[in-house]
Amino acid sequence: MTRLTRRYRFAASHRLQSPQFSEDENRALYGKCNNPYGHGHNYVLEVSVQGAIDQQSGQIVNLMALDQLVNEYVLRDFEHRNLNSDVPEFQKLVPTSENMLRVIEQRLRSRWPAEWPRLESIRLRETARNSFELQAT
Amino acid sequence: MTRLTRRYRFAASHRLQSPQFSEDENRALYGKCNNPYGHGHNYVLEVSVQGAIDQQSGQIVNLMALDQLVNEYVLRDFEHRNLNSDVPEFQKLVPTSENMLRVIEQRLRSRWPAEWPRLESIRLRETARNSFELQAT
Amino acid sequence: MTRLTRRYRFAASHRLQSPQFSEDENRALYGKCNNPYGHGHNYVLEVSVQGAIDQQSGQIVNLMALDQLVNEYVLRDFEHRNLNSDVPEFQKLVPTSENMLRVIEQRLRSRWPAEWPRLESIRLRETARNSFELQAT
Amino acid sequence: MTRLTRRYRFAASHRLQSPQFSEDENRALYGKCNNPYGHGHNYVLEVSVQGAIDQQSGQIVNLMALDQLVNEYVLRDFEHRNLNSDVPEFQKLVPTSENMLRVIEQRLRSRWPAEWPRLESIRLRETARNSFELQAT
Amino acid sequence: MTRLTRRYRFAASHRLQSPQFSEDENRALYGKCNNPYGHGHNYVLEVSVQGAIDQQSGQIVNLMALDQLVNEYVLRDFEHRNLNSDVPEFQKLVPTSENMLRVIEQRLRSRWPAEWPRLESIRLRETARNSFELQAT
Amino acid sequence: MTRLTRRYRFAASHRLQSPQFSEDENRALYGKCNNPYGHGHNYVLEVSVQGAIDQQSGQIVNLMALDQLVNEYVLRDFEHRNLNSDVPEFQKLVPTSENMLRVIEQRLRSRWPAEWPRLESIRLRETARNSFELQAT
Repeated sequence: MTRLTRRYRFAASHRLQSPQFSEDENRALYGKCNNPYGHGHNYVLEVSVQGAIDQQSGQIVNLMALDQLVNEYVLRDFEHRNLNSDVPEFQKLVPTSENMLRVIEQRLRSRWPAEWPRLESIRLRETARNSFELQAT
Repeated sequence: MTRLTRRYRFAASHRLQSPQFSEDENRALYGKCNNPYGHGHNYVLEVSVQGAIDQQSGQIVNLMALDQLVNEYVLRDFEHRNLNSDVPEFQKLVPTSENMLRVIEQRLRSRWPAEWPRLESIRLRETARNSFELQAT
Repeated sequence: MTRLTRRYRFAASHRLQSPQFSEDENRALYGKCNNPYGHGHNYVLEVSVQGAIDQQSGQIVNLMALDQLVNEYVLRDFEHRNLNSDVPEFQKLVPTSENMLRVIEQRLRSRWPAEWPRLESIRLRETARNSFELQAT
Repeated sequence: MTRLTRRYRFAASHRLQSPQFSEDENRALYGKCNNPYGHGHNYVLEVSVQGAIDQQSGQIVNLMALDQLVNEYVLRDFEHRNLNSDVPEFQKLVPTSENMLRVIEQRLRSRWPAEWPRLESIRLRETARNSFELQAT
Repeated sequence: MTRLTRRYRFAASHRLQSPQFSEDENRALYGKCNNPYGHGHNYVLEVSVQGAIDQQSGQIVNLMALDQLVNEYVLRDFEHRNLNSDVPEFQKLVPTSENMLRVIEQRLRSRWPAEWPRLESIRLRETARNSFELQAT
Repeated sequence: MTRLTRRYRFAASHRLQSPQFSEDENRALYGKCNNPYGHGHNYVLEVSVQGAIDQQSGQIVNLMALDQLVNEYVLRDFEHRNLNSDVPEFQKLVPTSENMLRVIEQRLRSRWPAEWPRLESIRLRETARNSFELQAT
């Protein structure tokens, strides 16, 4: 089995604030990520696909088709957006990188063509120091 | 003459919107950077100092002192902030990278110790594709 | 168990074109990678070895010996070469990154000293956006 | 004066071979870059523009317009191409990075809008170890 | 299950020399890493934590708490130090990257709060070409 | 005029300690860089050469010849060495990056072939955050 990883980039802003916590608790939990007017990142998204190499094409998956799927169902809504205000899933969900991975995976999985090799994992790099990975189910 | 370049990082959000233009003009000019709820970046700030090497210390400038100055007068106000809302200079100035350089240079220059070697230039990397440089005056 | 990953670089050119497809099909499948005179990349090859730490040396494998093996059986034939014309395996196999991984793994595995810890995986980064990984068998 | 640097990427192949030299001289001069079937690189092109910050827009130059110019007059002919075969200027000129800079600068300069701030320099990174810069005239 | 990877940096020096080998054997085994007065690296340490996303915080682990643990029990002793002379564990253990991983894992594991998600793996990048990974037990 | 920049890497250790200062002054001035047993870095050295493009070769300078010069007169003495103990110039000179640039420039300049284009500048990156540049005279 071979794995392909394709990298995408988007710039977005967010604020970490949970309605289940008080102001003080939010500040203690999220620190400067709780600053009232938000902040932002250059996110790096990596999508990994795992499968057999097609004997004819010598490829696991067609990159142009993969790009189209990721652009249409993820990047179009995330690129140069405020996650809290612009992405419906984050109306009720704190836009941490962990939750962003869940949302992105759900969006990709629900549109993933049945004949494609499986979506194996997605990674999100928030800053030069933090990255997050979700094994797709 | 030798030059030292020191790199700092901060994450911030902004929206490019000029009061001198109509909504349509703003959208045409700034594109997705004009999206209403803003977006953000992991900014990389580089500060360059140029001077003679001190014979005793073998250094141009003391790095710990430089860090303190940049932290106190720039990063504290920019790190994890919304530039439009949190930084006073951007109440009336569009927070483009070019204008950010002007503001940062002004802040550094006004506090720059007279006995230090001169502040030569500052650079700001907004994304993996865009960077900006200002020769300090 | 501990894993060592060693990184190598080589520059090569290739053209993606399968004899099993028509001209139109090749263009539709490979896009600009099918351009008639080829193109090229700065490839990054990562070789991962997994094993126990030798109590005496404190190492998994001797790096100088590993480098010699990879240089002799992979890099010498790939570095600054045209994969389609210069590497025998790609006379009949389309030189996609996926197939390159298969060829490289086969070359390494067939010469891998029996007493070495096992070759665990190899990765190939084709561009800043695409990378590929093969779990060695 | 402020400088904007915008980064572009393209993958291309080439062979260094000068008709003014014998086979032996070519091999001695260019080494493995003279290999008969060519090789390739992931080139990074940086275009720097220098000028005053426009008071209204807060920008030096409109990035969308710059991208369009570079795409149309440089990238479209270089991306995923064989420089020797696909780019007319290299029929008679050896496609070294130095000569590539001259060709790119000429293409950009001849189309550069008179009202734009000046094209200051262009840089080309050929590999992780080599980069080249040309001050535009 | 989701994985968070947090990146730390430290600069240190070391010499690879095993008391179990003769001078000649040490030189043959470690090459230039055995040079008598030592050398050094900018190490990059990555700590990966794997667990479920907390429903309330949207996070796997609190980053400020993780940083505190790594700083106190690893970086404080390693940052700008000579590993052979300054870190007690390397009095008897050759400070290869492999052994450094074992020591770091032991230090982290012995202080790891029982209620935290599990420490999954740690990686150490010694140079731009070498990195090492240990699956935590 | 065109500029070529070639990148080299070496790992070395050092301690910043000036005989002209007391122990306390050294610690105050250099901070953790004054730790008694030293520390180290993965240095990145960039050598820039500026000149006209040779009409026949299409190059500014022959890279293989440049590499040989840098290897022989700089890297051989610096790579995997302790700068204080192994490099004669640092017997009396504190091995700060600024002083390292002076030493490297002197070594290169004294051996620089008269017919070569001029050595324009050298840069030294000490860590991911610090870099230094010297305009050659």
